[in-house]
Amino acid sequence: MSFDPDADAAHLRETLLSREPVFDGRLLKVYQDTVRLPGGGEAGREIVHHRGAVAVVAVAPDGRVVLVRQWRHAMERAVWEIPAGTRDEGEEPAVTARRELAEETGYTAASWSSLGEAAVSPGYSQETIWFFRAEGLTAGQASADTDETLDVRLFSGDEVLQLVRAGATDMKTLAGLSLAGRLPALEGVR
Amino acid sequence: MSFDPDADAAHLRETLLSREPVFDGRLLKVYQDTVRLPGGGEAGREIVHHRGAVAVVAVAPDGRVVLVRQWRHAMERAVWEIPAGTRDEGEEPAVTARRELAEETGYTAASWSSLGEAAVSPGYSQETIWFFRAEGLTAGQASADTDETLDVRLFSGDEVLQLVRAGATDMKTLAGLSLAGRLPALEGVR
Repeated sequence: MSFDPDADAAHLRETLLSREPVFDGRLLKVYQDTVRLPGGGEAGREIVHHRGAVAVVAVAPDGRVVLVRQWRHAMERAVWEIPAGTRDEGEEPAVTARRELAEETGYTAASWSSLGEAAVSPGYSQETIWFFRAEGLTAGQASADTDETLDVRLFSGDEVLQLVRAGATDMKTLAGLSLAGRLPALEGVR
Repeated sequence: MSFDPDADAAHLRETLLSREPVFDGRLLKVYQDTVRLPGGGEAGREIVHHRGAVAVVAVAPDGRVVLVRQWRHAMERAVWEIPAGTRDEGEEPAVTARRELAEETGYTAASWSSLGEAAVSPGYSQETIWFFRAEGLTAGQASADTDETLDVRLFSGDEVLQLVRAGATDMKTLAGLSLAGRLPALEGVR
């Protein structure tokens, strides 16, 4: 690698002074931390811990990608997203990816590749998402969790940009499609 | 629009049955909700409320983009990200965008355009990020918040892909650069 992203970062480092657990849920753990700032003062940091998730860009032979729509209670609306799911404890991301694609969409894939990883919202969340690309799709029967109801549809890149304009998709979908080369740039937007 | 993302979504809708506030912080509010599922059962939903944020793809004349590096306590590491920040109460996203770019990087921009919006992590967060592209940059003096220490550097798209491989960037950076046409697809990754 010609560039070290962690070089000369010592002057940025914050150190944990105290931690107060404020919520211990099934999905989320929330902490109220106090840190020592690099300049010497103190600051509060409200942070969320989450096991991490995977997201899958499943590409059909015509170049379209598989999105699923589900009700997102946090957003109070339905959202179109690439298939994704939370890792089981200690599960390899590549295993989660195959499981979630099959459960949410019914598709299995002949060919898988890793697209890397990214922090979800590092200002307050510890969550990382691992991205995968899947090709050589075979349709099958979905078997979503009992508390999930999903629609499945193939989207072109231009249709995904329509979702962006409507506020009807999410950042992992844009990040994943982009890494997989399936998202065109917006044109002429003001 | 040729495609309505909200068409025929009634069969997906969950309705709120009860809400227990479990954390009321400066940045985050956390709720333990119970919802009625579309199929008739009940499920728990742990959700985080956040005022929402903006993110800015600031493009230099040579096509490189401005990233900032800061310590992200939630991730326990330094992360390279496009400039971004939380909206003040009731603030227009376009106003937040200009303020955050100047505060975090010192840059002002002659030309601004909207790139749309996306949900951050709709499985548990209500947060939306609004994306902007800024061009015609003029360097100036940064004035970050007292609890923020930042590095500023210009990155090519290929350098951002190196950050992805190192797990050293985040989803808003990938989503924003992609919408602005500044992120190449990964090639030959397995």
